Amino acid sequence: MSVDFNTLAQQFTEFYYNQFDTDRTQLGNLYREQSMLTFETTQLQGAKDIVEKLVSLPFQKVGHRISTLDAQPASPNGDVLVMITGDLLIDDEQNPQRFSQVFHLMPEGSSYYVFNDIFRLNYSA
Amino acid sequence: MSVDFNTLAQQFTEFYYNQFDTDRTQLGNLYREQSMLTFETTQLQGAKDIVEKLVSLPFQKVGHRISTLDAQPASPNGDVLVMITGDLLIDDEQNPQRFSQVFHLMPEGSSYYVFNDIFRLNYSA
Repeated sequence: MSVDFNTLAQQFTEFYYNQFDTDRTQLGNLYREQSMLTFETTQLQGAKDIVEKLVSLPFQKVGHRISTLDAQPASPNGDVLVMITGDLLIDDEQNPQRFSQVFHLMPEGSSYYVFNDIFRLNYSA
Repeated sequence: MSVDFNTLAQQFTEFYYNQFDTDRTQLGNLYREQSMLTFETTQLQGAKDIVEKLVSLPFQKVGHRISTLDAQPASPNGDVLVMITGDLLIDDEQNPQRFSQVFHLMPEGSSYYVFNDIFRLNYSA
């Protein structure tokens, strides 16, 4: 059976942002030792360092709102590339910040983990 | 020798946008039959269809300006994931449009081709 990569990408992304926005201490389950994260100018490797970084971000409340989500198969092995653009609502700020994020998802048994993750805020020029 | 993926990503991206902005009919050399492009809501596969789409875009003059460029190794085989955010200046418009783009670059001999390409304009919410 071929993987429906669009459905997978949507389900994974919704799960990821829901987890991020409700309890980001649990995000470590979605990364492995070989996983890499670029978060703005910081580059990290490994689930432990990645989740420490995400937990340490200086806000209490956060909400991700997806504007666009596009997926493509990344190899014949079933890994999937996802690019998301959207808005980030932080604490009690009224104005959302635009962001772009890429996930490179790797199959593992019947599930997937985040192999590559690149996150950037989009500042106006 | 391990590939310096950051240098590769920068050189490739600068070459790509320079080629796009000066003569995008030549971009087909950077794609293969298995390459995929998502351009806004259109999904295409194969160098021929991809370059036809890029050439058909309804502007005469275009300029890409890179704001952020981040790269990560995408496998032990040397493929590289690149996420770019930046501004697009089209024809004689004064206001740039924000864009996000992902390239998944595959090694081929001593060079690289674009295996996956996802492009989106970032509209304000």
